[in-house]
Amino acid sequence: MDSNQFREAAHAAIEEIVQYYEDISSRRVLSDVSPGYLRDLIPSEAPRNPEPWSAIQPDIERVIMPGLTHWQSPNFMAFFPAHATYPSMLGEMYSAAFTAPAFNWLCSPAVTELETVVLDWLAQLLGLPESFSSKGEGGGVIQGSASEAIVTVMVAARERALNLLSEGLGGKEKEDRIDSLRGKLVALGSEHAHSSTQKGAIIAGTKFRTVPGLKEDNFEVTGKSLQSALDQCKQDGLIPYYLTATLGTTATCAVDHFDEIAQVVKELPLKPWIHVDAAYAGSALVCEEYHHLSKQMEAMDSFDVNMHKWLLTNFDASCLFVKRRSDLTSALSITPSYLRNGFSDSGLVTDYRDWQIPLGRRFRSLKIWFVLRSYGAEGVKAHIRKHIGYGELFHELVKSRPDILEHVTGPQFALNVLAIAPTKKWLKDRARRTSASQPDPSHEAFLNDFTPDAERQALLDANEITKEVYETINKRGEIYLTSSVIGGKYVIRVVAATPQTEEKHVRRAFQIIVDTAEEILDKHTPAEANGQA
Amino acid sequence: MDSNQFREAAHAAIEEIVQYYEDISSRRVLSDVSPGYLRDLIPSEAPRNPEPWSAIQPDIERVIMPGLTHWQSPNFMAFFPAHATYPSMLGEMYSAAFTAPAFNWLCSPAVTELETVVLDWLAQLLGLPESFSSKGEGGGVIQGSASEAIVTVMVAARERALNLLSEGLGGKEKEDRIDSLRGKLVALGSEHAHSSTQKGAIIAGTKFRTVPGLKEDNFEVTGKSLQSALDQCKQDGLIPYYLTATLGTTATCAVDHFDEIAQVVKELPLKPWIHVDAAYAGSALVCEEYHHLSKQMEAMDSFDVNMHKWLLTNFDASCLFVKRRSDLTSALSITPSYLRNGFSDSGLVTDYRDWQIPLGRRFRSLKIWFVLRSYGAEGVKAHIRKHIGYGELFHELVKSRPDILEHVTGPQFALNVLAIAPTKKWLKDRARRTSASQPDPSHEAFLNDFTPDAERQALLDANEITKEVYETINKRGEIYLTSSVIGGKYVIRVVAATPQTEEKHVRRAFQIIVDTAEEILDKHTPAEANGQA
Repeated sequence: MDSNQFREAAHAAIEEIVQYYEDISSRRVLSDVSPGYLRDLIPSEAPRNPEPWSAIQPDIERVIMPGLTHWQSPNFMAFFPAHATYPSMLGEMYSAAFTAPAFNWLCSPAVTELETVVLDWLAQLLGLPESFSSKGEGGGVIQGSASEAIVTVMVAARERALNLLSEGLGGKEKEDRIDSLRGKLVALGSEHAHSSTQKGAIIAGTKFRTVPGLKEDNFEVTGKSLQSALDQCKQDGLIPYYLTATLGTTATCAVDHFDEIAQVVKELPLKPWIHVDAAYAGSALVCEEYHHLSKQMEAMDSFDVNMHKWLLTNFDASCLFVKRRSDLTSALSITPSYLRNGFSDSGLVTDYRDWQIPLGRRFRSLKIWFVLRSYGAEGVKAHIRKHIGYGELFHELVKSRPDILEHVTGPQFALNVLAIAPTKKWLKDRARRTSASQPDPSHEAFLNDFTPDAERQALLDANEITKEVYETINKRGEIYLTSSVIGGKYVIRVVAATPQTEEKHVRRAFQIIVDTAEEILDKHTPAEANGQA
Repeated sequence: MDSNQFREAAHAAIEEIVQYYEDISSRRVLSDVSPGYLRDLIPSEAPRNPEPWSAIQPDIERVIMPGLTHWQSPNFMAFFPAHATYPSMLGEMYSAAFTAPAFNWLCSPAVTELETVVLDWLAQLLGLPESFSSKGEGGGVIQGSASEAIVTVMVAARERALNLLSEGLGGKEKEDRIDSLRGKLVALGSEHAHSSTQKGAIIAGTKFRTVPGLKEDNFEVTGKSLQSALDQCKQDGLIPYYLTATLGTTATCAVDHFDEIAQVVKELPLKPWIHVDAAYAGSALVCEEYHHLSKQMEAMDSFDVNMHKWLLTNFDASCLFVKRRSDLTSALSITPSYLRNGFSDSGLVTDYRDWQIPLGRRFRSLKIWFVLRSYGAEGVKAHIRKHIGYGELFHELVKSRPDILEHVTGPQFALNVLAIAPTKKWLKDRARRTSASQPDPSHEAFLNDFTPDAERQALLDANEITKEVYETINKRGEIYLTSSVIGGKYVIRVVAATPQTEEKHVRRAFQIIVDTAEEILDKHTPAEANGQA
């Protein structure tokens, strides 16, 4: 592909992308292809001879589009959002053009230096203590994902702990001591922390235990719950070396009690590394009204937020801030002769390869730079506040239908969690209507108990109803939601926070949930009661 | 940025990228900015209000360009190449537009399915045994880098070993056994294997030992050298659970003896996982003349090649192939409720998050698809063969100047390794010319011995000369090379293999090396001998 062909191809691609974004809300948000759909649509081997772009581009619509779930659609309200925006795409274009596996400063100094500066910009916007900026002993580094960031700091934490616990020893004696300690080390995380902490512990080769986040504590880790987990570890001869505290858990956006946690770990003989996983909700800290949380990071070792979730930047842009960069480099730095150079040896430059698991890295700071400049600090804040507002609106709507909707948690960082839970009154009305009913064979087990005298049983089956409503909505693909199970309760999570989300999408989503809930409940009503027979 | 603004900005960006590629060889290949250069060029905080693209774009040339090392320049002959091409950039554009943190199939089925198919395409092109394709029990997965791939398989290897060694045990007994084994596990890699194996062992929390790759074996790991390392491990009570065998080491592109390695490990009570790191040289396997190497992969557990090095795809596209995908998923799969869905539960689909360290992943298969289609299988082979030819040409050129250049290794996969090593005859001529010389104060230590009767000493100082030539060339930035130290010898590596490389660049690079070598040696000659006084 020569320059002219590229120019033409790229213009056509840009046009297709613009059209895709303009029409995105008209597409079914959740892909409904069957497993294996794609293999039959393309050849089983690479073509022998070159194909022109005119042969390749149409396959985007034919082959790829049916298999896309449209995360940029305003009807996407599942998981957490994963933004992409135009300025961010421009950053990705230049990043590809300037490709370098920039593992050290000299590889392409701009890659390292822009990263340091824009992460300082971000730290300042987030209101993080200055110790997390490059001006202090810490600094920021872009990781591929929040899970990768967790493995990175967990390994640094493990090495720091092993070194402290074998201090003063040397040679074989030190090695033996470390060997004997490995099986005793345990990483901790809230039972509601993301599963990547558990996976990180596997990768780091240590044990993992959960800290309770009780329903009465709003699923948050408190000083008391942490203390109980620590006491149990002590009793079992385990050494906690690491803790994931969460700012915005996956299921409910719970915020652990950082100050209490800091207080509790201060008393320990070996202070564990405390990492704050703020992958999604951390973005809200750009707004001053959340800076009381930022201040609490002073006692933490590291903090991670994914700009690629809620901050207008396409995946990947996970921004990890550490308090002491030497904790990372002591654990992860290895310098063979072919990576040596005068600049690195001088200690004047940052070699980010020593701050991460992989060696190579992309030029990801470009997209952060473009995004922060294109929106401006005020634009970024307005963007977050808009979604916070939508979360509040949705909460009001849920409260307007207490007859069939149960508010479970939220609005918390734009996330609402609810269940379908008809009230006793609703059930009595329903029971009156269904007294003559015959069980729907497809729901026999459920309906066997769904009789006038089975109110209690029906309440227990709220989980089944919520699940059916949830699955029906996703199957239809008008909006896309995620479910979860919290404290034994099956719940639906709704987070309307894509760049294209407007109030009308929030209202429509609510209506779909209510309509589907009523429909599912009606399905279990005899046709005659619905006037259909 | 609205659609119209994006269209305009993107066209301008495309134009800038095309110009950059067209003029790239006229730019100084190695950036010469000073550490910290960038901070003064941009504000210390994010702007308060939005900036238009017209304010942002000029900063690419002003702020970024001076700090770029141009890996796409045909004058880049350092490290290994890191390609970017137009079709690959188009893939990156769509990938950004279709952003999804595609951690499971349902997130965006196309992301998973295209990846499976194009990696089957690649496995077939590389001539890998069918067991490495998705049709067998194995399959391919795109990782961010070869180093990330190493950590991934190392963790899988460690878990496989720990499970085998605690087989039949359960509960606390199994746990205790595993705890007692952790300190005994050792990962092995050639002393010439990339440092990421050593770093991987740190991350996985195990020991690491090198296997000798002797000079007389051309720096390759043989069955014999592996056996000697294994014997030493046994003697020290260590359990080798993993070995990185290399197809194309960083320093010299050495190829370990896979068949011998397979033979040796077959005899062990616990067969270690053998991973083949073919990060750079693996790309050559697209050519049939290298398929004898591909066949030897049958006895290996995994194989990794970076398309983002020599195969026309921008970073990142590290293609990892495993023989048994269940080895990865058994170690790395964790499924909390919010990640559960009917498709994943059915076992009919691939959830690539269980094949890697991070949870989320980008749509990287698009660029591989575009590249393989734009070039075609024949185009890709021609591309590799062209560079192999340049390697041979460069080797011929080196051989034409035995008076000052020493051929160290190669041409091997387009890499040549050489040293500046004046012959005795050259030294005698030099000595005759320098008999009246006064030492150049800046090189006093060296010149103190550089007298007519110091031939032997001068030979020992060949390392110093080579280093000075190397550093002078890089400082001038006409071409960019890497040095290394092999068997105590300071060497210069030359690999001319970017998409824009032509024969003229190879000849020019050779001339620069010869001219600089002569100049450095002349520098130590009195002015009068050069006719300058």
